[in-house]
Amino acid sequence: MKKFLSIITMMLTALSFGAVAQQVPIFAKEGEKSPNVHHVGNVWLKELSAPDSVFSYGTAVAIFDPGARLDWHSHPGGQILIFTEGKGYYQEKGKPKQTMKPGDVIKCLPGVEHWHGATAESGVTYIATSPAQKGRTIWLQKVTDAEYGPVKK
Amino acid sequence: MKKFLSIITMMLTALSFGAVAQQVPIFAKEGEKSPNVHHVGNVWLKELSAPDSVFSYGTAVAIFDPGARLDWHSHPGGQILIFTEGKGYYQEKGKPKQTMKPGDVIKCLPGVEHWHGATAESGVTYIATSPAQKGRTIWLQKVTDAEYGPVKK
Repeated sequence: MKKFLSIITMMLTALSFGAVAQQVPIFAKEGEKSPNVHHVGNVWLKELSAPDSVFSYGTAVAIFDPGARLDWHSHPGGQILIFTEGKGYYQEKGKPKQTMKPGDVIKCLPGVEHWHGATAESGVTYIATSPAQKGRTIWLQKVTDAEYGPVKK
Repeated sequence: MKKFLSIITMMLTALSFGAVAQQVPIFAKEGEKSPNVHHVGNVWLKELSAPDSVFSYGTAVAIFDPGARLDWHSHPGGQILIFTEGKGYYQEKGKPKQTMKPGDVIKCLPGVEHWHGATAESGVTYIATSPAQKGRTIWLQKVTDAEYGPVKK
């Protein structure tokens, strides 16, 4: 019985380590948390590559805690979002909110008003690539609670 | 003892499910495996977004089985690689081979001869963004076994 218990303990330990190893995120919440100017909740934005004379677009990773979301905004040059972790939302003005999962890709066209962020229950991470030559993000109104949808309490 | 065994079984089952859930890759090996023309081993390449009048670059995901690697090549417009899963190699002509892990980013400049792929022990996945306006990849010689490095047998 003692040996049996010790084997079970070893198996449980091994399995736990396996599970923990898998939970390491691709991108860490590195650097400073973004100040809450154009979003609510906790958001980390990290530039991966800056636009330059060779690459006319920047790449960045954005990490959202559960419940965090950007305000409505638009991009003069458009933006491509590639979701890599967790579960999020994406909505364009006048269209239904979409639920985003790892592997999903959004091509957001120039001038289209939209917002994105995490679901209430799960954080989300995406890679954003943004053509730089046409100017910076135009920030609009906050996402309302009605737009964001129900939050379990 | 019987009840104890059944609790242990339940715990093991729960942990196994947890571990499996974490192992779901971001990007599946979807579609056709790339034909072995410019690489060795198993490689899946899937376009995420095509270049167009708004976005002057394409985005794609490449998945390599352990041991798979591209031939030496160069890009007339350069390429940015963002590693998301596994463990890989990246090497530019005349420089040492680098080991790449999730979260690592490479800005490969136009005309620079280089190769990338998985390590012998682990597959690798990366997102590639490629400026399209200056033409297609120029393929060169195979990566030799000496360049690839030791493979445990």
